Amino acid sequence: MQNTDFDKIIKQLGSTKEYEFLYHRTFHEIPMPSIAELNEVVSLLRGVLFPGYFGNSDVRPESLNYYIGANIDKIYKLLSEQIKRGFCFLCEKDENACLNCENKSKEIAKEFISRLPKIKHLLSTDVIAAFNGDPAAKTYGEAIFCYPSIHAVTNYRIGHELVLLDVPLIPRIITEMSHSETGIDIHPGATIDEFFFIDHGTGVVIGETTIIGKNVRIYQGVTLGAKSFPVDEKGNPMKGVPRHPVVEDDVIIYSNATLLGRITIGKGSVIGGNMWITKDVAPGTKVMQNKQE
Amino acid sequence: MQNTDFDKIIKQLGSTKEYEFLYHRTFHEIPMPSIAELNEVVSLLRGVLFPGYFGNSDVRPESLNYYIGANIDKIYKLLSEQIKRGFCFLCEKDENACLNCENKSKEIAKEFISRLPKIKHLLSTDVIAAFNGDPAAKTYGEAIFCYPSIHAVTNYRIGHELVLLDVPLIPRIITEMSHSETGIDIHPGATIDEFFFIDHGTGVVIGETTIIGKNVRIYQGVTLGAKSFPVDEKGNPMKGVPRHPVVEDDVIIYSNATLLGRITIGKGSVIGGNMWITKDVAPGTKVMQNKQE
Amino acid sequence: MQNTDFDKIIKQLGSTKEYEFLYHRTFHEIPMPSIAELNEVVSLLRGVLFPGYFGNSDVRPESLNYYIGANIDKIYKLLSEQIKRGFCFLCEKDENACLNCENKSKEIAKEFISRLPKIKHLLSTDVIAAFNGDPAAKTYGEAIFCYPSIHAVTNYRIGHELVLLDVPLIPRIITEMSHSETGIDIHPGATIDEFFFIDHGTGVVIGETTIIGKNVRIYQGVTLGAKSFPVDEKGNPMKGVPRHPVVEDDVIIYSNATLLGRITIGKGSVIGGNMWITKDVAPGTKVMQNKQE
Amino acid sequence: MQNTDFDKIIKQLGSTKEYEFLYHRTFHEIPMPSIAELNEVVSLLRGVLFPGYFGNSDVRPESLNYYIGANIDKIYKLLSEQIKRGFCFLCEKDENACLNCENKSKEIAKEFISRLPKIKHLLSTDVIAAFNGDPAAKTYGEAIFCYPSIHAVTNYRIGHELVLLDVPLIPRIITEMSHSETGIDIHPGATIDEFFFIDHGTGVVIGETTIIGKNVRIYQGVTLGAKSFPVDEKGNPMKGVPRHPVVEDDVIIYSNATLLGRITIGKGSVIGGNMWITKDVAPGTKVMQNKQE
Amino acid sequence: MQNTDFDKIIKQLGSTKEYEFLYHRTFHEIPMPSIAELNEVVSLLRGVLFPGYFGNSDVRPESLNYYIGANIDKIYKLLSEQIKRGFCFLCEKDENACLNCENKSKEIAKEFISRLPKIKHLLSTDVIAAFNGDPAAKTYGEAIFCYPSIHAVTNYRIGHELVLLDVPLIPRIITEMSHSETGIDIHPGATIDEFFFIDHGTGVVIGETTIIGKNVRIYQGVTLGAKSFPVDEKGNPMKGVPRHPVVEDDVIIYSNATLLGRITIGKGSVIGGNMWITKDVAPGTKVMQNKQE
Amino acid sequence: MQNTDFDKIIKQLGSTKEYEFLYHRTFHEIPMPSIAELNEVVSLLRGVLFPGYFGNSDVRPESLNYYIGANIDKIYKLLSEQIKRGFCFLCEKDENACLNCENKSKEIAKEFISRLPKIKHLLSTDVIAAFNGDPAAKTYGEAIFCYPSIHAVTNYRIGHELVLLDVPLIPRIITEMSHSETGIDIHPGATIDEFFFIDHGTGVVIGETTIIGKNVRIYQGVTLGAKSFPVDEKGNPMKGVPRHPVVEDDVIIYSNATLLGRITIGKGSVIGGNMWITKDVAPGTKVMQNKQE
Repeated sequence: MQNTDFDKIIKQLGSTKEYEFLYHRTFHEIPMPSIAELNEVVSLLRGVLFPGYFGNSDVRPESLNYYIGANIDKIYKLLSEQIKRGFCFLCEKDENACLNCENKSKEIAKEFISRLPKIKHLLSTDVIAAFNGDPAAKTYGEAIFCYPSIHAVTNYRIGHELVLLDVPLIPRIITEMSHSETGIDIHPGATIDEFFFIDHGTGVVIGETTIIGKNVRIYQGVTLGAKSFPVDEKGNPMKGVPRHPVVEDDVIIYSNATLLGRITIGKGSVIGGNMWITKDVAPGTKVMQNKQE
Repeated sequence: MQNTDFDKIIKQLGSTKEYEFLYHRTFHEIPMPSIAELNEVVSLLRGVLFPGYFGNSDVRPESLNYYIGANIDKIYKLLSEQIKRGFCFLCEKDENACLNCENKSKEIAKEFISRLPKIKHLLSTDVIAAFNGDPAAKTYGEAIFCYPSIHAVTNYRIGHELVLLDVPLIPRIITEMSHSETGIDIHPGATIDEFFFIDHGTGVVIGETTIIGKNVRIYQGVTLGAKSFPVDEKGNPMKGVPRHPVVEDDVIIYSNATLLGRITIGKGSVIGGNMWITKDVAPGTKVMQNKQE
Repeated sequence: MQNTDFDKIIKQLGSTKEYEFLYHRTFHEIPMPSIAELNEVVSLLRGVLFPGYFGNSDVRPESLNYYIGANIDKIYKLLSEQIKRGFCFLCEKDENACLNCENKSKEIAKEFISRLPKIKHLLSTDVIAAFNGDPAAKTYGEAIFCYPSIHAVTNYRIGHELVLLDVPLIPRIITEMSHSETGIDIHPGATIDEFFFIDHGTGVVIGETTIIGKNVRIYQGVTLGAKSFPVDEKGNPMKGVPRHPVVEDDVIIYSNATLLGRITIGKGSVIGGNMWITKDVAPGTKVMQNKQE
Repeated sequence: MQNTDFDKIIKQLGSTKEYEFLYHRTFHEIPMPSIAELNEVVSLLRGVLFPGYFGNSDVRPESLNYYIGANIDKIYKLLSEQIKRGFCFLCEKDENACLNCENKSKEIAKEFISRLPKIKHLLSTDVIAAFNGDPAAKTYGEAIFCYPSIHAVTNYRIGHELVLLDVPLIPRIITEMSHSETGIDIHPGATIDEFFFIDHGTGVVIGETTIIGKNVRIYQGVTLGAKSFPVDEKGNPMKGVPRHPVVEDDVIIYSNATLLGRITIGKGSVIGGNMWITKDVAPGTKVMQNKQE
Repeated sequence: MQNTDFDKIIKQLGSTKEYEFLYHRTFHEIPMPSIAELNEVVSLLRGVLFPGYFGNSDVRPESLNYYIGANIDKIYKLLSEQIKRGFCFLCEKDENACLNCENKSKEIAKEFISRLPKIKHLLSTDVIAAFNGDPAAKTYGEAIFCYPSIHAVTNYRIGHELVLLDVPLIPRIITEMSHSETGIDIHPGATIDEFFFIDHGTGVVIGETTIIGKNVRIYQGVTLGAKSFPVDEKGNPMKGVPRHPVVEDDVIIYSNATLLGRITIGKGSVIGGNMWITKDVAPGTKVMQNKQE
Repeated sequence: MQNTDFDKIIKQLGSTKEYEFLYHRTFHEIPMPSIAELNEVVSLLRGVLFPGYFGNSDVRPESLNYYIGANIDKIYKLLSEQIKRGFCFLCEKDENACLNCENKSKEIAKEFISRLPKIKHLLSTDVIAAFNGDPAAKTYGEAIFCYPSIHAVTNYRIGHELVLLDVPLIPRIITEMSHSETGIDIHPGATIDEFFFIDHGTGVVIGETTIIGKNVRIYQGVTLGAKSFPVDEKGNPMKGVPRHPVVEDDVIIYSNATLLGRITIGKGSVIGGNMWITKDVAPGTKVMQNKQE
């Protein structure tokens, strides 16, 4: 390759005209959200939520509060910064909004921290659900330390709280991290109540507008998805319309079942493996394939 | 946030009373098992089992034994330590047991090392099965170096041997590592004979009490699971009861098939994709969907 | 363990006779392809293809070309080396071929770089397809930065171009990287046209000889696989025979559908979730389960 | 130690009253200058000033400008930030000054970059001086790559240019880095003309108000220091008063000589090893111990 | 080299007979002290002693105690371990002593931590001395952050406290770290009172039995050494005999002066540069070279 | 700065015409010697020469040979590569010489390895000398593990052996590493016999053509240098002419003494601190300052 060729290709690739949407410009010199820093935030949060299991694994009761305090302070700083970057990512370039954005991000981070006890409570119920739901689990600790469900649901509960605080982009990055690590894809917009457990988990998809009640258990490969989605007059998909299932309390959904659309799975129902469900299921129903194929 | 708020939340999060089971205390000052060190152990084992493919990739025949010797010594030390931590994780706090535990862990690590030739033999048959089972495989080496099946089955065979040696927790961590990397979830308690191959692999689940014979091939999304599990009088799941399939020699199970319960899939059977199987299958049977849906 | 035992096991494991195919010897002292370096190559490519999103996230228009130029130069050097190692991995030991191999690898790396604008164009259509295909997507940037589909398809398009340039092994390693990260398994040999989108993605398998047209959308758990594969007279699988589906333009395939064999899915067809398809589908057909099971 | 003791000591150490000057508070939430980032800046500068020797050591002429451009851009960003932190370190807390400070730092970084060709020219003369001044030097390249003199003088010339631009603290950190690495302590405030060489270097001290002419050579252990320093009426040392030697062109100072106070060493003089000089030396003088002790 | 040659050399190098003292065997399986971990200890200590300057540079008053608490806890664990290794390094192999040694190490670490306020007080006087003693110093902060004197004296004061607690080996390692970084070699056994300052510092040597009073200032290249040392009847040096100078309060010693033997430099004396002193100096004396050589 | 200014400066800095000697071009695409890799080589060598002290500090006698064997193999590969780069650094561009150069480098690395037992023997005498020469030394192990003398002399002995094997550049890099770490500057060309010890060490300079006998002890700040050096007719220094002292057996040289020129210090002499010596010293002489100044 002659150097002139080389230069030509570089110029072509560096041209921002044709594919402008493939080039991200920082406005106000704020860089992109950092996946590495968000990983650090989530690791610190795990250390705070499950002390002794993650982070400093030999933390003693005498020093526990010091570690939690130092971690909370780090989380506050790192998360404020990432929230700000999230806002900036979508920002419409009004420079005056910048200082406001900095302060708003800090307020949100503070509010998020004040909700950590709530998140901890919810996760404590998920740990109990995991232990009760899996005969292979020998202790609570094993579930906390190695179960993909606890890992993914922790990321989801963190991300969901940030969705409730109207943080853009960051929640999705946080749940995609655990999607990559566990194969469990929970949209942070979904609403999931306490005592939730996913066994094995690979291939599970829980869509943006899904609502899940208390004490629900699902298995690998289960999809809670949209049947189809409305498009606007230009043919573009309409964003934010409820289009995923409502799963009521005490439901069990076995592996690879597919539930599509804004349907309701009534309290206490059991959905068999590989089922294809696109209509409401009355409370207490067992939906099973009636014969071995 | 006033600092007093900050302090209040920290105190709340640091309180170990309410959610004591979310806080892991080290007993005898032994920290949690380290995922980083277990990763190192498994990497060293890969280097020993497939020399030249992993670890020092330019190892010459003249120096091969030196590398293997040094690696075995490192494996011995690292694994002893992690086994000890595994015992400690579940320990009932009898301080006098500690020294015994240290020695027991070393004995187990030694015994494990003495079984490496057996593991190597089994993996050699898995490599042959991968090459024979996938028309896209061009060489044995390609299968060893990039196939998720070999990756996950290596972790399984290591973990299973540790299960046979009654090591707690560590085997599960080792198979969850490869579950995260490949989407293949093999419980280390399962029993799998030689010439085993999983194609593509994402979403495969093989439960704790599964028994798989020689020369079995399965595809992505296959579940070898429990149909339901017995609970004791308190409603808690009973641990350790056989509840997963027995798959005999020479069986092929195509993608996304679900096999549940302590059923037997007879020698030489073929289970079609997406099948839902909850009863025994006689030897030599082809179970297929009889028409295109 | 007596040291003599220790020594015996090492000798046994170091013996290259019995399991010679488990030991990789470097010929011409060229080491194995390096997954770490290929990761670096792919990261640099992401930075070049989506500037500002990956790599130096605060790159300004004034300096964009400098970064692209420096990255292209690094890619050229790193990729040439890895291509050479790929050839060497399969080399039949003719020492004289070596210098030729070095030059050939550089020529291929140069040619690959000259095709980057084409790859960039294809990916720009995939980004549009992702945005249009997912109601949860709020901006193009979100899709570029966090969607598994864009991540996996980028690796695929890089790998596929290397397949077209007859590079062995390396393309497969590159697609296995994203398989591990996303659960999406696209063989680099497959042919995929523009505006391609995979939603959620975990469990998707696209086989080596698959051909996919323009504007195709598929969901998690979809398999485009082989029904069976011909074996030669020795019973070994015949390599390289077309055995995967042809999917024409504008097709949608919903989650967990399984399409097997060299069949054709006609233009504009829609395949429902969990479908099992082993025969041709005429253009414009909607193949759905006709009732809720 | 009872935990109460532990807590007491922590409270004592955390009390900021008694030793307030030992506790650095960030104003305006700007952290301390980062030694790691300044190391990165200096490494990038070495790569720009001596391309091919440092940084990307295999940079080809065709791609040289791309690398330099990308490095200059990184230097600009990193250095602006560190300059800002330097200002902030000494800032008297006027919040309104902040935005101004940000811009000022960027202007200074730009101006610094525009002076790099001048720094490069000066260093080119230092390289020639090193080669000519040391019979053990075999090539210019050897001097560039391994001589402590070039290493320390590069840091000095960078730091000095920042002093001229009125940047606080940062220049001192940059010269202390090379002080630690080479044992050569040049205050960035000193003025040193072209063709400067220090042989061996350990123990050399060149004070803040020293002025060194062209073509000067000094050896290890040489001190160009202050004899004493004036104190103000409170007994505190007066800052910034000229108090170190003026060394004119073509002077050689042999090892461990000590030159103190605002004296002038005339053009072409030679100062013998271990000499103790506190008065002016006329041009062309050889000051030697007249007998072997 | 034939492999047999290779093997022969390895055997020769691995033979522990001839040079047994060059091979360190761990007793009781306790490894060598770790320089990396001691670096971590000293870094954490710097963060505790000079909060905001080192470690978390943006620590806020509200969270300061949490950081100090967490750091103290880490220091306690890491230092206990290293102290134990220090004892073990010199251990005479009595296995029963081991458990005692573990406890003793923890007690010492606790006692050391309880002395940190004292160390902090001493260092606060050293910072004042540095600021007052150097006209180039613009703030206390600059001295804390970049002066080699503060760096080396911090290591010394840490190391000396460990000497007082009878910890073997570790103190020496800690002062050798700063010797390497600053060229200042202070033996941890030396006794140095408050308000101590070393300007520039490279080449300073302060011997094991040196005693230095309050408010002493010394310059680069100063040696406080032994004149000769007594040997026992076998001709081996006698260890631990006082053999270095006593320097009383308010003394200044200029660069490259050499003071040897158990002599006393009286209160308020000034020793000129390059002086060679082997006898007592009366209080208030100025010892200077009387003429310019 | 307008971007055009930015571009102009980059072009200016990237211009290789004016300062061509500041730009290192790789010939034959061989990069510069790597300081990181040479650091690795020296670390591995320390592990081989002082097993248990460096590298794997808990190496057991049973596995010692495996570690040494694996390390020797790594040293062989890394050092061959660096030697080749050293040759290439000075290469006069004859492409045909390349393959020869590769082989020559390997031969030299092999020969170097075969001399390791000799180096080990010499260092064992240096350890004894350190222990005997320093009353503060409590064990051999302490000297091996923390004395700057052993550190610097190890690098010197490695570097010197490479000088004897006619390796360019690399030896100098290796001794400059320890110069930076210890302040001891020993040119690898110097000749030093057994039982050599340098106490404290900072500021010691030992020139290229120095010859030192057995059992010599020197202190910090000692210079064994050149008095002046002959220049050729063009005024350039003549390289390689003997110009540094010859120090015979059993000599002691105290701190900061300066010995210049090709003089001989006779067997058993003692040179006092701060002495300035430019003439021969007869055997057995004590050269001391006769009075306290």
